[in-house]
Amino acid sequence: MAEQFDIAVIPGDGIGPEVIAEARRVLDAALAGSSAQISWTEYSLGAGHWLETGETLTEETLEKLKRHSAILFGAVGADPLDTRIPSGIIERELLLGLRFNLDHSVNLRPSQTFPGVSTPLAGEGDFDFVVVREGTEGPYAGNGGQLRRGTPQEIATEVSVNTAHGVRRVVRDAFVRAQARSKKLTLVHKNNVLTYAGDLWTRTTREVAQEFPEVTWDYMHVDAATIHMVTDPQRFDVIVTDNLFGDILTDLAAAITGGIGLAASGSINAEGVYPSMFEPVHGSAPDIAGQQIADPTAAVLSSALMLDNLGLTEAARAVGQAVHAQLTEWAQSGTTGLSTAQRGDAFVAKIKETL
Amino acid sequence: MAEQFDIAVIPGDGIGPEVIAEARRVLDAALAGSSAQISWTEYSLGAGHWLETGETLTEETLEKLKRHSAILFGAVGADPLDTRIPSGIIERELLLGLRFNLDHSVNLRPSQTFPGVSTPLAGEGDFDFVVVREGTEGPYAGNGGQLRRGTPQEIATEVSVNTAHGVRRVVRDAFVRAQARSKKLTLVHKNNVLTYAGDLWTRTTREVAQEFPEVTWDYMHVDAATIHMVTDPQRFDVIVTDNLFGDILTDLAAAITGGIGLAASGSINAEGVYPSMFEPVHGSAPDIAGQQIADPTAAVLSSALMLDNLGLTEAARAVGQAVHAQLTEWAQSGTTGLSTAQRGDAFVAKIKETL
Ligand SMILES: CC(C)[C@H](C(=O)O)[C@@H](O)C(=O)O
Ligand SMILES: CC(C)[C@H](C(=O)O)[C@@H](O)C(=O)O
Repeated sequence: MAEQFDIAVIPGDGIGPEVIAEARRVLDAALAGSSAQISWTEYSLGAGHWLETGETLTEETLEKLKRHSAILFGAVGADPLDTRIPSGIIERELLLGLRFNLDHSVNLRPSQTFPGVSTPLAGEGDFDFVVVREGTEGPYAGNGGQLRRGTPQEIATEVSVNTAHGVRRVVRDAFVRAQARSKKLTLVHKNNVLTYAGDLWTRTTREVAQEFPEVTWDYMHVDAATIHMVTDPQRFDVIVTDNLFGDILTDLAAAITGGIGLAASGSINAEGVYPSMFEPVHGSAPDIAGQQIADPTAAVLSSALMLDNLGLTEAARAVGQAVHAQLTEWAQSGTTGLSTAQRGDAFVAKIKETL
Repeated sequence: MAEQFDIAVIPGDGIGPEVIAEARRVLDAALAGSSAQISWTEYSLGAGHWLETGETLTEETLEKLKRHSAILFGAVGADPLDTRIPSGIIERELLLGLRFNLDHSVNLRPSQTFPGVSTPLAGEGDFDFVVVREGTEGPYAGNGGQLRRGTPQEIATEVSVNTAHGVRRVVRDAFVRAQARSKKLTLVHKNNVLTYAGDLWTRTTREVAQEFPEVTWDYMHVDAATIHMVTDPQRFDVIVTDNLFGDILTDLAAAITGGIGLAASGSINAEGVYPSMFEPVHGSAPDIAGQQIADPTAAVLSSALMLDNLGLTEAARAVGQAVHAQLTEWAQSGTTGLSTAQRGDAFVAKIKETL
């Protein structure tokens, strides 16, 4: 019997719709001939939607989204010069709203060098690691406040909330991934200063490690981790870290691979209760929107993460291999300057060749 | 009448004493013939001292330190394999203890490329920027706690405390520096997520900017800042940021200049009530201690920051120029493998030439 997958698509703003269009075509190609049936439902959400409706994410939309198998997400965010939209509201209420309401405990961000893509680092050497970022708590909890705002006595606080529940499940997920990869895990935190949360993270990692005797793990402060990332990224395999450190480190990780146009991510509901969500790490880039110059690779690779998460591992592998093969060919032939759709075409053609 | 400066020296652990010895010699050379009189008082503090006495920083020592003109600090921290010392206690009670008790509101960290020092970045191009990191609050405040520790219901919190007082003085300091440099300032924060603190930082910067109409400023999220730091560090001139973001960004900044062996810092009491403290960004590196292979450059450049802070600008400039000239010579002659003392000798000789 054919498997049915009902995917929600949120193209979003700026270059979101352009890159998502290519990701969908690649996905359809990868599943052609397989027994899996994919249906797509598009949701109009983001800055544009807010300007039309004043809504970021209604209860009703959230309930509808919860019924899907997965969510493919483009990018959201207004033109920073558009002062009609309160700063950060779309990112918080929609993007973080989805991560929190759909309990996306594991924010997965692979980072690897690609054939022919030059990196800002002088050192040669390929690398391939994955950051497992906590996605539902920490400094992102939205706790905190202001007192005596606007006076010389003003105090503003931000509370990082860390729970045994939240830390344990993401650490366990990271160990499972490490076990399936090179059996090496690095916990990144700042436990010499953030002693309460740092103790919980370090202790939990030590405990969960007992269940994975084959995996060796070490600890690194977040400041030191930035040094290693630019001097010997090869030392990393699986990094597990909190929500904010993960945010910072994965942008750096994307930068050292040669660009944010290639970085894919998955926000995963580890318990499988709600749909997971897959999105390129890059933003909506309003400055280059509608020009067909955005790189769809990150969106395409995000859809491969989605396939993998849905258990369609063969199709996922086909997409990954097609992207690598195509980037290698472009590198060898010195091809540059392709449009968004031309890149999508090429990925689709590659997949058809290999299936 | 001769000016008198009574400097406290805390050589500390590991390579601390070795690099501080050279910094002192260079300093003495830079002041030879000037009317300024420097006296040195050494304080034995750090991991070694803790092992002997069980003390990190007593009230009595703190009171003595407060009476000095400035503090020259090497590095502290035990061998990570030495399990006798509770993890992080020396860093927190001594290093952060000094920063907090001496109200070191401005943590100053210049970052620049040096002649002949190869960087991990592929791009050519020199850069020269300074990070002004808040030093007395934010996530470093030590606020937070644990509830139900060790149970599945455990909660650990960390509270970032930000005050109008603390933010305003460091932002103003950064504007003063920007005014004296290229008149460009970048505020780095994460105000789309950390909205309470982010609002205080952004609003304060906007307000203080009114006093500095010649300085243009922009805002950048901390995650994006890591990307720019490895792809176009030239875009930065003065960065102002909070305690934790500053900790992370300055390690990255040190890495991209070619190494932490060159990065100097000053923890400055902006009001001049207590002595400021000057220290290399690097740690105590117990693995290479006592071998005369540590690079004293960061300590030497930190002592130049100290001279500058004491108003001895000519001597400060002499040290900076001597270091640059000597590094250039070594680069041209391909000299490597010098001992700690040989490098110190060379800097001293260079200073004698130029004075
Ligand atoms: C847009 C922003 C809220 C978001 C985050 O901070 O998580 C983004 O930077 C990311 O990494 O997905
Ligand atoms: C040792 C540690 C407490 C310290 C900090 O986090 O500030 C160090 O990393 C630094 O940057 O000076």
